[in-house]
Amino acid sequence: MDTHSLPSKLLDTAVGELASLPGIGRKTALRLALHLLKQPAEQVNYFGNAIIAMRNEVKQCRVCCNISDSDTCEICANPNRESSTICVVENVQDVMSIEATLQYNGLYHVLGGVISPMDGISPGDLNIASLLERVAAGDAKEAIIAISTTMEGETTAYYLYKKLSAYPIKISALARGVEFGNELEHTDEITLGRSIKNRTPFENLFGHKG
Amino acid sequence: MDTHSLPSKLLDTAVGELASLPGIGRKTALRLALHLLKQPAEQVNYFGNAIIAMRNEVKQCRVCCNISDSDTCEICANPNRESSTICVVENVQDVMSIEATLQYNGLYHVLGGVISPMDGISPGDLNIASLLERVAAGDAKEAIIAISTTMEGETTAYYLYKKLSAYPIKISALARGVEFGNELEHTDEITLGRSIKNRTPFENLFGHKG
Repeated sequence: MDTHSLPSKLLDTAVGELASLPGIGRKTALRLALHLLKQPAEQVNYFGNAIIAMRNEVKQCRVCCNISDSDTCEICANPNRESSTICVVENVQDVMSIEATLQYNGLYHVLGGVISPMDGISPGDLNIASLLERVAAGDAKEAIIAISTTMEGETTAYYLYKKLSAYPIKISALARGVEFGNELEHTDEITLGRSIKNRTPFENLFGHKG
Repeated sequence: MDTHSLPSKLLDTAVGELASLPGIGRKTALRLALHLLKQPAEQVNYFGNAIIAMRNEVKQCRVCCNISDSDTCEICANPNRESSTICVVENVQDVMSIEATLQYNGLYHVLGGVISPMDGISPGDLNIASLLERVAAGDAKEAIIAISTTMEGETTAYYLYKKLSAYPIKISALARGVEFGNELEHTDEITLGRSIKNRTPFENLFGHKG
């Protein structure tokens, strides 16, 4: 099917916009547009306006840079969270992932990405200055670096470690090792090697703290 | 990642709307919403408004029910198309598929689906009455039934054949047989059996008319 000769300019424009989304090609975009065309008008108006409202009205938390409907996000505003611990993550999804574990009760700092010269992302493009200000000014006692173990992630983690070392706080990282539910024969050599070297007292696997 | 505890109601609403699209789950919807959140505001406004405008302003051609920006679509309005032939198709994509072949110069009629009791779609839900009116009133000499060879499609084709038989026109169907580029061993038995029974003079494969 040639999607380049659509019978309507309005449809063509909408398909072009949908196809600008990551992972959505023109063929899928056409399918989505024709689906929307079949829905009640008020439903499609609601759809379009929900996206516009999100973009225009969602705020960034002035403390941790997480997204939020108010100036300070629900986590930073919650007096029951331990403000002495800051978990540094790449993005909003990571905050949600860690929150879903129900194992962490501190605060966050969302970097907004990782250092990646290939993609033109330097430390100045990330929320690092605000993190250091926060550590300098605040009552933080520990920073947990919780960043992907990709090459860019490790570079970013090391950069943060050097910067945070200027402050009298504990700097920790997520534990590394064999993933739960993984068979040893499918675990890569580096992970397995480090997991033997950094072996942990057996009772720690089931307890809260090492 | 638990996508049910988003840090913003505005984000949550937008994710819900995106996840209402066919084939898009909540996880993908979240990824799309966060992508949109990073784009310039005016670009996202354009995105939302393009979809709203499409839904509110796209028309249905009053002759063939194809989608169109004006009351009569470009194909029906084109004096160079042969108005004596009407190709009956399920949907807008099929019009585009046939147009892309550059092998057809007649008009179309878009049914808007196929008869499917399982999905609650009866003949009255399709643009069949308008097709019969068109055949009764117009100068059509031939109707080509170009519908999917699924069970619902065949049912619809037979229904149309019976209805159209009341008029003094030629009723034809798309040729059936082994698809181009297909190996015989991968062609199903029914297709292969019918293709031998309805074998065609060899020279027809390369000519225009049988």
